Amino acid sequence: MVSKNKANYIISLQKKKVRDEERLFVIEGDKLVKEFLLARAPVKTLIAKPEFLNSLPLFLKQGVAEIIPASYDELKRISTLKTPHNALAVIVIPENIPDPAELKKGLTVALDCIQDPGNLGTIIRAAAWFGLKNIYCSHDCVDEYNPKVIQASMGAILHVNVFYTELNELLRKAAEINLPVFGTMLEGESIYTYKLASKGIILLGNESQGISNGLLPFITDKIVIPRLTDDSSGIDSLNVSMAASVIFSEFTRSKGRQL
Amino acid sequence: MVSKNKANYIISLQKKKVRDEERLFVIEGDKLVKEFLLARAPVKTLIAKPEFLNSLPLFLKQGVAEIIPASYDELKRISTLKTPHNALAVIVIPENIPDPAELKKGLTVALDCIQDPGNLGTIIRAAAWFGLKNIYCSHDCVDEYNPKVIQASMGAILHVNVFYTELNELLRKAAEINLPVFGTMLEGESIYTYKLASKGIILLGNESQGISNGLLPFITDKIVIPRLTDDSSGIDSLNVSMAASVIFSEFTRSKGRQL
Repeated sequence: MVSKNKANYIISLQKKKVRDEERLFVIEGDKLVKEFLLARAPVKTLIAKPEFLNSLPLFLKQGVAEIIPASYDELKRISTLKTPHNALAVIVIPENIPDPAELKKGLTVALDCIQDPGNLGTIIRAAAWFGLKNIYCSHDCVDEYNPKVIQASMGAILHVNVFYTELNELLRKAAEINLPVFGTMLEGESIYTYKLASKGIILLGNESQGISNGLLPFITDKIVIPRLTDDSSGIDSLNVSMAASVIFSEFTRSKGRQL
Repeated sequence: MVSKNKANYIISLQKKKVRDEERLFVIEGDKLVKEFLLARAPVKTLIAKPEFLNSLPLFLKQGVAEIIPASYDELKRISTLKTPHNALAVIVIPENIPDPAELKKGLTVALDCIQDPGNLGTIIRAAAWFGLKNIYCSHDCVDEYNPKVIQASMGAILHVNVFYTELNELLRKAAEINLPVFGTMLEGESIYTYKLASKGIILLGNESQGISNGLLPFITDKIVIPRLTDDSSGIDSLNVSMAASVIFSEFTRSKGRQL
């Protein structure tokens, strides 16, 4: 049974402030919870229907600090979803410390003020698919552990490091080591013909404002996804997560990147 | 002022059944409403704050059957959004009749049971960007005029024809005229190396089930977006709208498609 205190505590983790203080976040969903258990993520509390708990092999449960069987109604109460899944887990936020040496090794993603949680989750998922391991977010991006980000990323946060940082410091560092910074902008050159690199930073801007003025001087390579529509009205941009997918794909193809 | 009857009528259009009967749908947002006016779409009712109405050039208002100035609270009442925009309009659903001759002219998109409105809207937006003019949806896809689809498509429905049809009939027709049908599946060949065509049908399947079994025999060309991650757990698929963006982009690039 989920005590009232426990329920309130888990609900309080829907707030970023509480997550930051407690260094905990919540994941929901049978598949997602299994993935975190399989990946040996530090699961503090697992709350699930008895059927779900019984279906788990013993070795997956061994590392879990606390396991609480719960009814549908109890899960519904603590869930952010209208229809709760069978399982929910509280996970310890990992200490992610960026390693500047990683920058030189390949492609890094930098996100400037991405505010829609669905977009951030989708970008993390696309990064994972295309083997991009590190995403740097400006401090005004939505929180990686926002429930809607987790839901859209579909477990991809297990495979991608997300750091929150001052992007101008990151980009200054990139300039010091002569790392190209690719920025998407209308006056850029087509990604289909531009010589893309296998190392560098892919900088993506806010949903409606684009890349901040303060960051524009750091862009060394201006690129664009060519638009093939005959009428510009209405179609003035691709959604940033779609643009990210297309750009990641094109970097992948053009360099014949492989594992 | 928006009468109670009018308000209830507009709210009733949030239901697909009512939209189908009345042949009307609702759009929200200053930018979107302006785009529909500029495109000379058949606007039946325009409800907006006086400031918005005053800012419109006269010629844009001339074709509108009914114009109602409204307060913030009145707009809030009829809006699907928590925070309403300054303008909302009721539009006549166009009579979209598919032209089979169009199939031979270029690339057509076929969507099998896409259920998430955000995904359908995003796919329509990507299609518009990449100049794909025709999308055929199976009858179990979400409705094109669902408010969330409209919101995600960002005006792109003005530029793309969306038809609801029996996909097996469409694909049978394609087979009769030797048109390739491209289907994304795990065992497909990489889109980066596969010889893509400038004509044919791009078939995309349901968010979790993929392409229906009944449609698989129609696929002539199996393709896949290569995954570049070193661990398959968790990253078992790209979101369908991201996959659509990447595939549309790759068809565009590889054929050097132009207007």
